[in-house]
Parts: sequence; C-alpha cells; structure tokens
Amino acid sequence: MPKIFCLADVCMVPIGTDSASISDFVALIEKKIRESPLKSTLHSAGTTIEGPWDEVMGLIGEIHEHGHEKGYVRVHTDIRVGTRTDKHQTAQDKIDIVLKKISQ
Amino acid sequence: MPKIFCLADVCMVPIGTDSASISDFVALIEKKIRESPLKSTLHSAGTTIEGPWDEVMGLIGEIHEHGHEKGYVRVHTDIRVGTRTDKHQTAQDKIDIVLKKISQ
Amino acid sequence: MPKIFCLADVCMVPIGTDSASISDFVALIEKKIRESPLKSTLHSAGTTIEGPWDEVMGLIGEIHEHGHEKGYVRVHTDIRVGTRTDKHQTAQDKIDIVLKKISQ
Amino acid sequence: MPKIFCLADVCMVPIGTDSASISDFVALIEKKIRESPLKSTLHSAGTTIEGPWDEVMGLIGEIHEHGHEKGYVRVHTDIRVGTRTDKHQTAQDKIDIVLKKISQ
Repeated sequence: MPKIFCLADVCMVPIGTDSASISDFVALIEKKIRESPLKSTLHSAGTTIEGPWDEVMGLIGEIHEHGHEKGYVRVHTDIRVGTRTDKHQTAQDKIDIVLKKISQ
Repeated sequence: MPKIFCLADVCMVPIGTDSASISDFVALIEKKIRESPLKSTLHSAGTTIEGPWDEVMGLIGEIHEHGHEKGYVRVHTDIRVGTRTDKHQTAQDKIDIVLKKISQ
Repeated sequence: MPKIFCLADVCMVPIGTDSASISDFVALIEKKIRESPLKSTLHSAGTTIEGPWDEVMGLIGEIHEHGHEKGYVRVHTDIRVGTRTDKHQTAQDKIDIVLKKISQ
Repeated sequence: MPKIFCLADVCMVPIGTDSASISDFVALIEKKIRESPLKSTLHSAGTTIEGPWDEVMGLIGEIHEHGHEKGYVRVHTDIRVGTRTDKHQTAQDKIDIVLKKISQ
C-alpha cells in the first residue's frame, strides 16, 4: 500500500436517507475523522485530511464502513487528492501562500 | 438561465504550466472571485461560492476565460454544487450545524 | 455569460430519497440531457456534455430545477469541466488518442 | 484496510507538464490500470475501477507513485467513489438499468 504523503479533500453524502438534512451523517463522520491521528480541517463542502496515502484512504474507507454499520445503506464520496515530489506542503501552507500573493 | 440559489465548491488547476507550483494561478482566480459581488470562502482545496446558479456558473466560466487571457492554455476544474428546496442554507450554516452536533 | 467551448462530466445524485436506488432519478436527468441539442455520452459514473459554457451550465442548472419540480428536495452534483485554447477536442477525441497510445 | 466493494471513478491530471496535452500521462496510467486484476472502464473524463476498497485505493496510489517515478512532479486526482450494502452492483449494471428506464 503506497505511503506517499497526500492532501485529500473529502465530501461524503449518504444516499437514501429519507430526510434531505444530512448533518447527523456529517457529524458522525467528522467525529470519526477527528478521532484519527491524521490532521484534518473541516469546511462547508468537505474535510481536508493530510497524511500517508494508505492511512488517509484507509480512514475514508473505514468511515464508509462505519456509516453502513450505523444504518446508512449507500455512501457517495468525492475525493480531490494530490501528491507531489518537489516539496512538502500542508493544507495551511497552500492557503498562506495564496493569501500572501493576493495581498501583494 | 436558472437562478436557483446554489452552493458551489470550486477547485481549479491549470494544466501545462511548466512549474508544479500553481499559487500564482490560484491567487489570480481568487482575486477575480473576491471582486465579484458573490459571497465566497477560500479553503486549502478550493473556494466555496454562494449565489444564484447563473451568476455562480457565469463567474466560474469568466475565470476560465480570464485564465486563458493571462496565458493559461488549459484549465481543469472540479465543482461540487448543491441546490435544495426545503430551506435556505449558507456555507457557514452548514459548518455551524455540524460543529454543534459534534460538541453534543 | 461565457461561451467558451467546454467538456463537462456531470455526476448528479439526489439526497433524501428514501430509497438507495436512484436509477429513476438518473433516467429522469439523462432524458433531459438527451432532449437538449448538446452532444452527450453516458457512462457508469456520470454523463459527459460538450458545448458552449453557458449552454452546458444552463442545462445542468435546468436539470436541478427539473429534479426539484419532480419532487427531489435536494440535488448534489459533481462536475469536472475543462477548457483549452490550444486546440478543439471532443470527448471522443480524448478517448481515441489515449487508446492509440496504449496500443503502440 | 477496508475491503468493502466499491466503484471508483478516477480522473487524474499531471500539474507542471510544460505541454497542455496530457494524453501521454493518461496512456501511462491507463496501461497501469489495465495491468491490474481489477475490472475497469475508460471514458473521456476518467476511468471507473471496481473492486475491494483496499485494492482500488492501493492501485490509485501506486499510479501516483508510478507517475512520479516517470518524472511527473505533481499529480492531481478526482475520485467519485460509492459503496452500498443493499445489493451488489457493477458499473455495467448501473448503465443497463438507466438505459432500460429511458427506453420505457
């Protein structure tokens, strides 16, 4: 399993939930993410998770399984994930450099 | 052109840029987004834009064209967009309800 | 509204549907896409639509509204969209060139 | 590592490639996908891969690493992935049911 460092931005939704309000589900998975040792940042359209590929993708899969155990029959996820070899960059680094350039 | 209110989370990358560092491009488009009257929030994997469908999608298209004018030959974008009829919800509302439920 | 040619790959899911089976919804939107004059191709994870930015994004918004009219309270969509200025390329062109290079 | 069956639709682009034409890269990764034992289907906006979570996500990570070994400094990927517990469904099943409902 690859161990390359990645930044993965994850947007998960349950399908077939009766209600269009899914904040219970989002709170369930956000708790799971925060219990993991991986660094993460919540935003309104997902959560960015940072770490080795195997741990990040393992965590997302575990959350799918956790959702199913809690009664969510179908989970649909969009992941934007990037890796690079020229330098190490955190999620916060990406924001900082853009804000700095905007203010110039 | 549809005018339904939407929340659109946009991640734009240029392809064929010589350098793997794209913060100049991200700063360029983030400035354009902030010049628009639409409410937006930057995060490390994109920017969330709120407003009527025609204005939001028009803005994203204008940014593609703006990027091309500035010399970016190819622009590749991922948009997560949602609409709903049961209630009006802002990007901040979505975060607030999840944080409240997590803390319970 | 921008008129630049784009290729947009669209994955739409309804949220709050009671059932985890959403093929009725997908058939509903696929019909709508096929009624439009824009060229499109269905695959298992979405539909690729080709045409001017305003028409493509207008169509996707109309489908959101159409879904709401048919009783779907919330629609969640992921769009991968690209524009380029170096050459005109259709969805089929993209597949053809890759298949040709694989077979070499 | 989770082993739940998933359908993952993957769109990978290299960043910092000098040229806006990325079919060499796409052919490189498509070859890698086809060498794996997992079932996959190419379309113009990505490739759908079917199999256990650990194998599918492991393969995508290996392709990132393979791209880096071949000189691609940065790889940016969008993954749409779904799991469900109510029934087993292949990528082809999803298309078949929609086409059947459209023709009715």
